[in-house]
Amino acid sequence: MTVTTDFPLSARLRDVRGSAIRDLLTLTARPDVLSLAGGLPAAGALPRERIAAAAERALRAPASVQYGETAGLAGLREVVAAHEAQRLDRPVAAGDVVVTSGSQQALDLLARAVVDPGDPVVVEDPVYVGALQVFQAAGADLHGVPLDADGMDLDALERLLRGGLRPRLVHTVSSFHNPRGVTLAAERRARLAHLADRYGLLVVEDDPYGLLGFEGAPPRAMRADEADAVIYLGSFSKTFAPGLRVGWVLAPHGVRDKLVMASEANQLCPSSFTQMTVAAYLGTHPWREQVKAYREVYRERRDAMLAALTDLMPEGTTWTVPAGGFYVWATLPEGLDAGAMLPRAIGERVAYVPGAAFYAHDSADPAARRSLRLSYCYPTPEQIREGVRRLAGVVEAELEVRASFGLTAPSRGGAGYPEGSEPGLP
Amino acid sequence: MTVTTDFPLSARLRDVRGSAIRDLLTLTARPDVLSLAGGLPAAGALPRERIAAAAERALRAPASVQYGETAGLAGLREVVAAHEAQRLDRPVAAGDVVVTSGSQQALDLLARAVVDPGDPVVVEDPVYVGALQVFQAAGADLHGVPLDADGMDLDALERLLRGGLRPRLVHTVSSFHNPRGVTLAAERRARLAHLADRYGLLVVEDDPYGLLGFEGAPPRAMRADEADAVIYLGSFSKTFAPGLRVGWVLAPHGVRDKLVMASEANQLCPSSFTQMTVAAYLGTHPWREQVKAYREVYRERRDAMLAALTDLMPEGTTWTVPAGGFYVWATLPEGLDAGAMLPRAIGERVAYVPGAAFYAHDSADPAARRSLRLSYCYPTPEQIREGVRRLAGVVEAELEVRASFGLTAPSRGGAGYPEGSEPGLP
Repeated sequence: MTVTTDFPLSARLRDVRGSAIRDLLTLTARPDVLSLAGGLPAAGALPRERIAAAAERALRAPASVQYGETAGLAGLREVVAAHEAQRLDRPVAAGDVVVTSGSQQALDLLARAVVDPGDPVVVEDPVYVGALQVFQAAGADLHGVPLDADGMDLDALERLLRGGLRPRLVHTVSSFHNPRGVTLAAERRARLAHLADRYGLLVVEDDPYGLLGFEGAPPRAMRADEADAVIYLGSFSKTFAPGLRVGWVLAPHGVRDKLVMASEANQLCPSSFTQMTVAAYLGTHPWREQVKAYREVYRERRDAMLAALTDLMPEGTTWTVPAGGFYVWATLPEGLDAGAMLPRAIGERVAYVPGAAFYAHDSADPAARRSLRLSYCYPTPEQIREGVRRLAGVVEAELEVRASFGLTAPSRGGAGYPEGSEPGLP
Repeated sequence: MTVTTDFPLSARLRDVRGSAIRDLLTLTARPDVLSLAGGLPAAGALPRERIAAAAERALRAPASVQYGETAGLAGLREVVAAHEAQRLDRPVAAGDVVVTSGSQQALDLLARAVVDPGDPVVVEDPVYVGALQVFQAAGADLHGVPLDADGMDLDALERLLRGGLRPRLVHTVSSFHNPRGVTLAAERRARLAHLADRYGLLVVEDDPYGLLGFEGAPPRAMRADEADAVIYLGSFSKTFAPGLRVGWVLAPHGVRDKLVMASEANQLCPSSFTQMTVAAYLGTHPWREQVKAYREVYRERRDAMLAALTDLMPEGTTWTVPAGGFYVWATLPEGLDAGAMLPRAIGERVAYVPGAAFYAHDSADPAARRSLRLSYCYPTPEQIREGVRRLAGVVEAELEVRASFGLTAPSRGGAGYPEGSEPGLP
């Protein structure tokens, strides 16, 4: 028989790149590489024997191994509804909750339910890579809106809207942004809700990190004040365990029905076993306690990263100071290129994600190529410091090479490597 | 703020109907209704305390609660590869296996990887409803090929191919068909592989029931003889437990890469917890034993259904005799309409799925409206007999009504109810 290896593939997937993060995870699987790349939660802190006990309790019911409702099992939907009613300070019924196999599936179902190829979608610039993949696969026409220290630049968004753009969705990781580490300020949340109302927008409030703030109460969700135009995505992945793949959506009624329909075609129903295990666990071990424990872990690690950056990085490096979540966004001295530098960093046994991976299009911001995402969620404080020490060494070496060959002067700004002169693999 | 309830929805989902099966599950949730409708496995037969022990073992490893590889965890892929190597009688490496959240996700990812809107796809007529939903959502141009007692009518398929049709996929539930109960004969499998080779087709061998035959060895998979053109979908849902949502795909290399990419956008990775639980279970309790236990259960239930149909159904009713799997496809006496009869059946506390739910388009086969799917997988033999007794009563009452009002004579055939005269809800 003929060996046929080149089957035609769908146009919509042809142009979707694999995630740079995932490619890196392969590169950084070497045990001697200190990875500041992946966004893995510190799930080692979980009392796994308690999860086993919860699984055992869940398995007492035959429903735990059977197909269940596409929208999710009643028991878990009630747990989530009670939590969200408290968080959003408004009534939330179990029937309002659609359970998904993690937030990523929710994003994907949403894109299918609402976006046709060519439809405009607004994303943050830089944007969560998983959202980028989903919207690219949906064939969306992506429009990036820049972020500053207070989150999405709503003046920039409003200019697009005034210019006639009518996006099907506006996606934001509103709290403790991935990858930028910033949080949408309270007054901007109100203004975004107002814009949504005025222009008939659907805002996707993608909120896996919202409970993981280091100071005070969690930021007030937009969904709390604007249930008609805000689709809220929640997840147990960062506050409980990603390995169970349990997330949820709160959405306006008409969207919710389509999400359930899309979910049925996608996987019939979420896993009954994982849903019932999570519900059984949260029935005996208050989630707030678990979240509190995680917050302490991440606060300590963030502090370790900020201290290491302050102590060790060469002058000219800047970074965001996240008030929660997993990520610091660092910008290297002018003239450097975080993507070109990565092979050298891997050679020095430290990994990060170059900022360019998080842009829908080549960024207009000249600082984009100098940027990188540093994750402090998974490594220990000691590992974080050692990772930053290695990274600082790589940056210093790059700066020295450039100074020796006169390739750049920091004051000239953003020159980048002359074509053909990128440093090779170490 | 304005209450906005009518957001625009994507064109591709606008026309996808919810599954008739799922709507029925709602109707038949009443505890007094005997359901012959749903395709739920007899998972009550599973030793759940052993699954709890496997979950406990899985949870000893931190990886069980963490994100994992998108293509699946190595441990489970090895288990599946070893099983498939034996079943397919050819080498299968762990790297050949892509783990999915059930077979349904595999179908959905496949449609995304290979099908663009408007692309032709060949399905069986009648077709598995989940495949219908996936391909409709993908915007495929569906072409139905009829089934007979030996599975897909390959003369009909070849006529389409000779006529110039070049489908992106040909989907078949080759063994113990859902909903027809038939199995693609060995010589037809060879011929379909030959057609795939000749016309450059990709065949989707959707095989959740293949191991659940009641006599002799499982049917030889097409993938055993034609790895280049056959995408094989396997599942633990029918042979272990659907509540864990674990399935897998074997596909040609180029397709496999795109499946992994689509899976990453869809849900980042399958649940590590369920994968490791399944792997831990199968590591200590041979899967073959579990499959054998299920086979005995389903054989007994099939026999109960066939005996009840023979003993109780009015003359003129015919049905398939499945050699494995979950379903009997029955055809009522001429003049009856299984869809129109359903409300009366529910009133008599028995449920089934009308055959019309399983067709991509209105069927040209006049017997389609008289057909229904009867599932014997979930109810006990006693419940099956009682369900068929109730169903027979409904059919007899329908026949009497029709005879009294002279609406039909069986020999005239397929008249159906005159418009406006459908029996109302009881």
